[in-house]
Amino acid sequence: MEKAEAGEGGDADSYQKLRQIYRDIQTGAKAFLTAEYGMCVKFIAVFGFAMIFFVANVDGRWDFKIGALTAFSFVVGGVTSMISGYIGMMIAVFTNARCTMTATLSPDAVAWKESFNVAFRGGAVMGFALSGLGILVLYFLICMYVTVFDVASEAIKLFECVAGFGLGGSAIAMFGRVGGGIYTKAADVGADLAGKVVAGIPEDDPRNPATIADNVGDNVGDVAGMGSDLFGSFAEATCAALVIAAQSHDLVSAGWDTLIFPLYISAVGILVCAAVSFVATDLKPVRDEAEIEQVLTTQLALTTIGMTVVMYPICATFLPSTFYLGARSTFAASCANATGNSKCVTNGPFHAFCCISAGLWGGLIIGFVTEYFTSHSYSPVREVARSTETGAATNIIYGLALGYKSTIVPAGILSGIVFASFSLMDMYGVSLAALGMLGTLSTCLAIDVYGPICDNAGGIAEMAELPETVREKTDALDAAGNTTAAIGKGFAIGSAALVSLALTAAFVTRTSVLDHGVNMLNPVVFAFLLIGSMLPYWFSAMTMKSVGVAAMEMVKEVKRQFDTIPGLLEGSPGHAPPDHARCIKISTDASLREMVPPAILVMTSPIATGIFFGVEAVIGLLAGGLVSGVQLAISASNTGGAWDNAKKYVEKGGLFIDMPKRDNVTGEIIRDELGSPVLISVRQRKGSDCHKAAVVGDTVGDPLKDTSGPALNILMKLMAIISLVFADYFMSINNGQGFLNVPRQAF
Amino acid sequence: MEKAEAGEGGDADSYQKLRQIYRDIQTGAKAFLTAEYGMCVKFIAVFGFAMIFFVANVDGRWDFKIGALTAFSFVVGGVTSMISGYIGMMIAVFTNARCTMTATLSPDAVAWKESFNVAFRGGAVMGFALSGLGILVLYFLICMYVTVFDVASEAIKLFECVAGFGLGGSAIAMFGRVGGGIYTKAADVGADLAGKVVAGIPEDDPRNPATIADNVGDNVGDVAGMGSDLFGSFAEATCAALVIAAQSHDLVSAGWDTLIFPLYISAVGILVCAAVSFVATDLKPVRDEAEIEQVLTTQLALTTIGMTVVMYPICATFLPSTFYLGARSTFAASCANATGNSKCVTNGPFHAFCCISAGLWGGLIIGFVTEYFTSHSYSPVREVARSTETGAATNIIYGLALGYKSTIVPAGILSGIVFASFSLMDMYGVSLAALGMLGTLSTCLAIDVYGPICDNAGGIAEMAELPETVREKTDALDAAGNTTAAIGKGFAIGSAALVSLALTAAFVTRTSVLDHGVNMLNPVVFAFLLIGSMLPYWFSAMTMKSVGVAAMEMVKEVKRQFDTIPGLLEGSPGHAPPDHARCIKISTDASLREMVPPAILVMTSPIATGIFFGVEAVIGLLAGGLVSGVQLAISASNTGGAWDNAKKYVEKGGLFIDMPKRDNVTGEIIRDELGSPVLISVRQRKGSDCHKAAVVGDTVGDPLKDTSGPALNILMKLMAIISLVFADYFMSINNGQGFLNVPRQAF
Repeated sequence: MEKAEAGEGGDADSYQKLRQIYRDIQTGAKAFLTAEYGMCVKFIAVFGFAMIFFVANVDGRWDFKIGALTAFSFVVGGVTSMISGYIGMMIAVFTNARCTMTATLSPDAVAWKESFNVAFRGGAVMGFALSGLGILVLYFLICMYVTVFDVASEAIKLFECVAGFGLGGSAIAMFGRVGGGIYTKAADVGADLAGKVVAGIPEDDPRNPATIADNVGDNVGDVAGMGSDLFGSFAEATCAALVIAAQSHDLVSAGWDTLIFPLYISAVGILVCAAVSFVATDLKPVRDEAEIEQVLTTQLALTTIGMTVVMYPICATFLPSTFYLGARSTFAASCANATGNSKCVTNGPFHAFCCISAGLWGGLIIGFVTEYFTSHSYSPVREVARSTETGAATNIIYGLALGYKSTIVPAGILSGIVFASFSLMDMYGVSLAALGMLGTLSTCLAIDVYGPICDNAGGIAEMAELPETVREKTDALDAAGNTTAAIGKGFAIGSAALVSLALTAAFVTRTSVLDHGVNMLNPVVFAFLLIGSMLPYWFSAMTMKSVGVAAMEMVKEVKRQFDTIPGLLEGSPGHAPPDHARCIKISTDASLREMVPPAILVMTSPIATGIFFGVEAVIGLLAGGLVSGVQLAISASNTGGAWDNAKKYVEKGGLFIDMPKRDNVTGEIIRDELGSPVLISVRQRKGSDCHKAAVVGDTVGDPLKDTSGPALNILMKLMAIISLVFADYFMSINNGQGFLNVPRQAF
Repeated sequence: MEKAEAGEGGDADSYQKLRQIYRDIQTGAKAFLTAEYGMCVKFIAVFGFAMIFFVANVDGRWDFKIGALTAFSFVVGGVTSMISGYIGMMIAVFTNARCTMTATLSPDAVAWKESFNVAFRGGAVMGFALSGLGILVLYFLICMYVTVFDVASEAIKLFECVAGFGLGGSAIAMFGRVGGGIYTKAADVGADLAGKVVAGIPEDDPRNPATIADNVGDNVGDVAGMGSDLFGSFAEATCAALVIAAQSHDLVSAGWDTLIFPLYISAVGILVCAAVSFVATDLKPVRDEAEIEQVLTTQLALTTIGMTVVMYPICATFLPSTFYLGARSTFAASCANATGNSKCVTNGPFHAFCCISAGLWGGLIIGFVTEYFTSHSYSPVREVARSTETGAATNIIYGLALGYKSTIVPAGILSGIVFASFSLMDMYGVSLAALGMLGTLSTCLAIDVYGPICDNAGGIAEMAELPETVREKTDALDAAGNTTAAIGKGFAIGSAALVSLALTAAFVTRTSVLDHGVNMLNPVVFAFLLIGSMLPYWFSAMTMKSVGVAAMEMVKEVKRQFDTIPGLLEGSPGHAPPDHARCIKISTDASLREMVPPAILVMTSPIATGIFFGVEAVIGLLAGGLVSGVQLAISASNTGGAWDNAKKYVEKGGLFIDMPKRDNVTGEIIRDELGSPVLISVRQRKGSDCHKAAVVGDTVGDPLKDTSGPALNILMKLMAIISLVFADYFMSINNGQGFLNVPRQAF
């Protein structure tokens, strides 16, 4: 390994520090995951045990085989998710420090290429490990269950048991996302506020005791959290598609490959992603700053194109040309006198191809719209940056308005996908669209994880007091990562919405409500539609508040350390080191404590609704949560992303403000083009009033974009899959009308 | 009139100024209303003319009588709404100055009583004028149409034509709320920012050229806007109830009084409100600051109790005991083999009483929950105030979380009301619940309008440079007004939700879709559910952005005036006065310009959906807009209200922050209870860092609580009533499947 090209401080000393920081982060990350997974294991044990009984209760009879196998799938799903999160996080932690090291290389072109490649490959390892592991475990699980059930006659039961896998993955994702989200933002907001408000020192300053917790948080929230979230989406989408397919007499009788066709979509996706990943790292490597963002977005576009190309042959190979998507009768009889029935599929491969492509391209467009609204290369973020001229308040107003506005296109695209895929292939089409959107999962994850790796590399460079040029490189890598992380979030939300709808669809199919439709104007349905649409708000209130509470605890601890550790704040030579461990403990404790109430809310709402009010109420609840959650999640993520990048835009000197000459300005002064003497255009930088206003927006955006926004994905999916797994139990209570025996609306 | 008790400045001079300010506000308000109503008249003319043709097209045949009468109702509704708004605003403007004058009286007890009574009576005049006018005009309109239609056989057509009245009222409310909301907040935010950021002078300083615009805005937005909003709710709720009643063969044949029973609810409501209003002004007058809030909330509670007491006899007098809520058959035949059919009413008066009471008490509870979340007497706002300790960012985070959390109870109550009233009396029950909630309309309006009157009285006192004690009184009156205004907003949102659902119900009944239900899992319904739930976000984005843009224009104009008018900023004696008129013009122009796009969005969405995708899509759109809009409106209003009062809490010295001794603190220092020497508890006041942070929240909250939040009410209602009026036209296109001929889902 070469040495840094510009040696401002002692190099050996810096690398020593770097190693120490790496170890601190690793210890902190392991400590958090151990604590979190400890709780998860207990939860899995208790909930899994309860499931054996609840799920076994089918139509008043007890079938413990079903209960036990569902619970087993649940445990396997949960454990797989934990392993995936752990792998991803350890890789990210390794890669953080490596990326900082490679950024010190010379000449510049080598440093750019190598540090980009390290970060991107780190992300890719995570992406491939996670999707590969997920698909393998799921496949083995299915193979195991095939020995227990008779596929021809018991396909529905088989895949219902498998659905526990999705629930397990999603439950862990809940804890990962919410716990990780609270951890990372408590540390981030706490460190920022403590540094700026209390001590007046910059972000990532080594004197700040909360910085290590902040670095751990990036790995815990953005890497492990995002990983388990998308793993959950993948597991659930596949389970939903399999459960729906199993309802179709024609698909079951067409043979094994046709039945597990949904798995092939994901499997092919991994191969395509792998093939495309060499473009970024080898065929067309990054040579300078300007190319980073382009390379990342190209990856995504190429993967989408590649998937589209290979999907038609796959569909044509595995799907029959005509089939009926229902259990009761054969194709010919069912479709003879039912025109416009979306369950009658007359051109299977082509219809499936259309659904999958709709998901693929819809995801890409949602991603790029997200980029448009959150990258400072485009006008929306620049407008937000400009609004800092009149202070923090207008910055917040513009940011919120931007987030609201950014829901328009995604909501339109999602409804277009739903409409098209549903019209083509009923609920099966929706689940295929969800799988299509997740077809680029490995690439998406690689790009997503790339961001926090670079972010942390920058933090490490700052703490290790490496030369300014290193920090500049990691900052540039990180800026591109921020934008692509926004794309990833768009994907995550879009796919969560489709997955959640597919799961709702599977629930509807299971509970046979669809036979007479779900009347939205049934009082109980509408009432729960209203309640469901409130849940995302309640959930967000909890998670945001948790971040606030934990961040304030962190600020107090930092204050305490500055007050009690002599020489720390002044940075006098030989002062005692800050006590990182206590800050890490505060974040860990807070996140473990605060993640419980939101998790309980999400898990008990559908169960309580189903038990007391029946399955129609559950469908109302799910639909309400879905339509309201999507909007809230998109707007929260994009508002936060926009504020973050507006701040970065100001920091890199993009913002100029015209001021009257009499203003007492400091900093670089640039006359306007006409040389007019009345106004001067002042470049705003760190420390200017505009920057301070931008920082307020950034801090507000942190919990929105990294805690409550992404966690809403899980809310939607988890509520739906819990309902699906408990569907038979709900049906066993007063024929699905709940203990309150709510009457179905007469038509 | 007595003179002020403490003469710091020249009294005669102050009163001279006061008169001048009053005239300025009056001129500005008239100018704005003239400009706004000019646009409204054009809109009414064009849209009304178009309606003649669109509404006349029933089942492919042309019935111009229907078209013309609907259009006529539309025009009458619009004009009535404009007259109501005008009356309310002129009264408010008169009362502003009177309230300032009475606050100068001595002794204090007289000043408290008189100034409270002036403000409250001003509000009451507006409340009674508006509800009285509305009900009278509607009654005469119905009487007129009775001469044209045969009630026994054409009741449905009759009330469909009358429904135009609701549309007219609501369309003007749209312009009033959005235009007024943008006006008032552009002026308010602009004046605040210009004062604080540009010049460093306090709010309402007479040197600030934007203050008169700000005062005009309070009257324009909070009085005229709120008035036309609630007038719209009243008109629409009544129309919805009438249209639904007209579908029932039994109700129509039971006689005229039974048919127009919904009007009696509102009529009785006015009498009850009038009787109760004497409690506040005469029986138990306000004697000091502490009593104000209590007197106002007592009013509301007493009105609710009074209404509940008188409602049962009214129901028993006018409603038959058993009836069927459908057109096709008589009660006996329909209900014989339909158990659990909510259309079969077996105890009419009691069921109606329950529905109305549910609305009445639900409204009251929603109001009080709103108060809990927005008054600084309770912990939520105090917690938000405390969060300013760590700066503006945590203040924003806590405020947003508070708003999200505040949706829980209202959403629960609304869904409870919907469930109960729907189960008891089908859609008719929902419309009765809406009318029940609006039964206390006159009192609500009185309380609502009371707030801005006091707010303005304070502004006038400041500008007229009256003694400090006067300002203290008006501030206290205003603080109570803020809280009760929040209650009013809660009411407005709750009633809007119920009204919107009732209108949707009327639409469903009209389009006969209910015969086979609205399947939520029909692709087109679900797709539009998703789009509908996005519309409130789009709409909010537009309105918030508009406020931002207009406020920045205002700031620039104020800057320009300070730069160009010599001596203005320094306040040197004999300087030229600020140019208020230009600031008023900026607010007026901006609001007229910016209110058009949101209005177009709201009006064209349901029409375009119905024309292209059919009636099922429209129902999805309406339901989505409703469930998502309610949450967004509640959270926006309450977040804004909480920030406002958190700021007030800091200003009145309620917030103490513990600081380490080494902090360099100024201001009052209070030792903690134990006399511990380590920490000092510092009272935060105007100008402290906490106050600055609180001001940021307040400014962000302004457009949320006074522009986008309340305007969402109109979005919900207006979309629904437009759909209702155009229902026949939609049905004429491919039998309600739209030009795209979207197939209905086969069951």
